[in-house]
Amino acid sequence: MVSKAVAKYVHALHLKKFRLRHGAFLVEGGKSVQELLSSGLLTERLFLTAEFAAKIPSVPASIPLEVVSEEELTRLGTLSTNNTALAIARLPEEPPLRPTTHGLLLALDQVRDPGNLGTLIRLADWYGLQGVVCSDTCADPWAPKTVAATMGSFTRVPIWQRELPDWLASLPKDVAVYGADLEGDNVHKLNLSPNGVLIMGSESHGMRPEVEAHLTRRLHIPGVGGAESLNVAVSAAILLDNFYRHL
Amino acid sequence: MVSKAVAKYVHALHLKKFRLRHGAFLVEGGKSVQELLSSGLLTERLFLTAEFAAKIPSVPASIPLEVVSEEELTRLGTLSTNNTALAIARLPEEPPLRPTTHGLLLALDQVRDPGNLGTLIRLADWYGLQGVVCSDTCADPWAPKTVAATMGSFTRVPIWQRELPDWLASLPKDVAVYGADLEGDNVHKLNLSPNGVLIMGSESHGMRPEVEAHLTRRLHIPGVGGAESLNVAVSAAILLDNFYRHL
Repeated sequence: MVSKAVAKYVHALHLKKFRLRHGAFLVEGGKSVQELLSSGLLTERLFLTAEFAAKIPSVPASIPLEVVSEEELTRLGTLSTNNTALAIARLPEEPPLRPTTHGLLLALDQVRDPGNLGTLIRLADWYGLQGVVCSDTCADPWAPKTVAATMGSFTRVPIWQRELPDWLASLPKDVAVYGADLEGDNVHKLNLSPNGVLIMGSESHGMRPEVEAHLTRRLHIPGVGGAESLNVAVSAAILLDNFYRHL
Repeated sequence: MVSKAVAKYVHALHLKKFRLRHGAFLVEGGKSVQELLSSGLLTERLFLTAEFAAKIPSVPASIPLEVVSEEELTRLGTLSTNNTALAIARLPEEPPLRPTTHGLLLALDQVRDPGNLGTLIRLADWYGLQGVVCSDTCADPWAPKTVAATMGSFTRVPIWQRELPDWLASLPKDVAVYGADLEGDNVHKLNLSPNGVLIMGSESHGMRPEVEAHLTRRLHIPGVGGAESLNVAVSAAILLDNFYRHL
């Protein structure tokens, strides 16, 4: 039985304000919790169903652990049902953010949907990017829905939150800054190398003008059908594949 | 003021069972409703806020139309708020499904998430595919969340629902059947032409064996990072871009 004080703490972490205040976030579901436990991130506390506890390898004795019912687990978290696990993890410290001319960073301007943000972080992991720089106005990278959509990649991909126009203004002049644009160059005709920054804009409004002003190269994905645009994670995927296809 | 009988009908259309029974589905939000009105699909009834009604061009007088408050509109639909429009549309008739050796069909096996399904339909529209064949076990292509995620592409992309293993078994022998597979051929090294069928499997389990058995060519997207897999719409996007990059 989870104490009232602990339940209150877990519920507080549903909200960004309290995640920041406590320096902690929630990881929900068996697969994500297993990724957490095998990563370098710190786990503060674990809640498992007896069924799930029987299935996983041993957990370090230093991590407080409670075996709870499926109903209790579901009440603690944000999922509609959870019959496996929930963890409280410490927010990782930001590594230094050094944009170099060797390696690609993904920068996101106002990506508001946590599912899209998580899918983009997973994609950054697939291509081994240096990390993801989120504008302050993006969805919270540590929201439960974002974490879930990363499918474990939250343990591997460095994430920074920055005032994007200021950060872009501070970049050395020789760093290439790419972005999608309907008037841009056809990505199929270019020989792109994965060095610099690739910016993706918001689902509904694209990039803000003060972000777009920093682009040094505009890229276009040719389409032949009727759709006006693509989902932000889908566009990023296609662009990244064009950066990494020559390796 | 919407009558009780009409409100009951709209609420029934939140559910697949009643969409099938009535041959109708819901379209929510201003942009999607405008796409509906400028498409060949039949609109049965329209609900608009006064503010939105003032912004759009005239609507055919043959379509019953009610101007309602934002609160009423929100109560009718599935969105958390709606201050623009909601429409009831007739389910389109399925066009004949003829897989040819000229043109590409996207086939989806057990894609359960309506957001992913809608994003895939939007992607099919971008590349001008012949259409999307959904297994009976996919999310409903006419669910409000699917329709919303297509961003209007529901008006343009032919959609079929089929018992996928049976349908695949019925294909002529010269139709190429592609699918993603970690052991497949590197898509960056192939010169793919967009003819045949591309199958994408479910978010968590991939393709069923009885579907996979029909593949004639397995494709692999090379990644260099730590993620085990990619989101289904993201994978489809990268594969499709590789089919269409030589045109």
